[in-house]
Amino acid sequence: MLRLYLSASSDNGNMRTIQLEPIGQVISEIENEREERWGGVIAEIRLEATRFEPAAFNGLQEFSHVEVLFQFDQLPEATVETKTRHPRENPNWPKVGIFAQRGRKRPNRIGATICEIVSVNGLSLRVRGLDAFHGSPVLDLKPVMAEFLPEKKNVRQPQWARELMSTYF
Amino acid sequence: MLRLYLSASSDNGNMRTIQLEPIGQVISEIENEREERWGGVIAEIRLEATRFEPAAFNGLQEFSHVEVLFQFDQLPEATVETKTRHPRENPNWPKVGIFAQRGRKRPNRIGATICEIVSVNGLSLRVRGLDAFHGSPVLDLKPVMAEFLPEKKNVRQPQWARELMSTYF
Repeated sequence: MLRLYLSASSDNGNMRTIQLEPIGQVISEIENEREERWGGVIAEIRLEATRFEPAAFNGLQEFSHVEVLFQFDQLPEATVETKTRHPRENPNWPKVGIFAQRGRKRPNRIGATICEIVSVNGLSLRVRGLDAFHGSPVLDLKPVMAEFLPEKKNVRQPQWARELMSTYF
Repeated sequence: MLRLYLSASSDNGNMRTIQLEPIGQVISEIENEREERWGGVIAEIRLEATRFEPAAFNGLQEFSHVEVLFQFDQLPEATVETKTRHPRENPNWPKVGIFAQRGRKRPNRIGATICEIVSVNGLSLRVRGLDAFHGSPVLDLKPVMAEFLPEKKNVRQPQWARELMSTYF
């Protein structure tokens, strides 16, 4: 492998660009712009066969949920918002900062979603409720441990978020 | 900016390397290898001033919790495990796959932690319980919406994970 990386000046202050290798990809029947009703979707995550063996999943079936980190790489980088926008471009909801919403057109275009594990088989993990499109690169998979979760009754969020989420899953 | 990227052959099958620009960094008094008792730690996340304005946080204070995605970039890439290991190298716990644990020495070295929001001020966000070291690059910040969380009582996890987590926060 020959790889050469030159950057005469950073476009990000003194912070370095981070290079990640996808660990796998999403196989899903959802290929297009779906915005809602992800709860019933069953998707597969297939580990990259050149780098991983099924052992990387050993013990995962003892967990009920997994967090999937992936990239919305189908969205053009030029559409990324860095300031404020109305969630879903809905003028009835307030214009909030990009880090006060979970919209996809965000810096680095990363999605992070907790899904129910359906099955683990070889290099394939099937999950329920993954809001990713077919072909999305997967950056990490983490088993969900209850201690990492806040009590839902202690989670406070604005009214627009409740309204948006009411039909999301 | 001059940037040149050449890759004669990919080390990752047909999946492309992903380049991310950190959105900010972690400012914390925790500089070294801490493994436990993160619950009381207050850390600051400072947005990169060359790319963001305080408006990117507008409305975040209406949420109680934020999920922080960051990279454990202090860990040498050579220490990353891609197969199986005992969590914490503890032989009393089973040797499980790297995607069946949340250990840091994992492919892409990403951390994803839900934290309580302490304050938002300009480009600075203060949070409680962030298990990141000082200087870690931050990849994304997402407000926590209850609908993305499973009910804690429905989360199933093995005994070793309960034991490990009992002193984590």
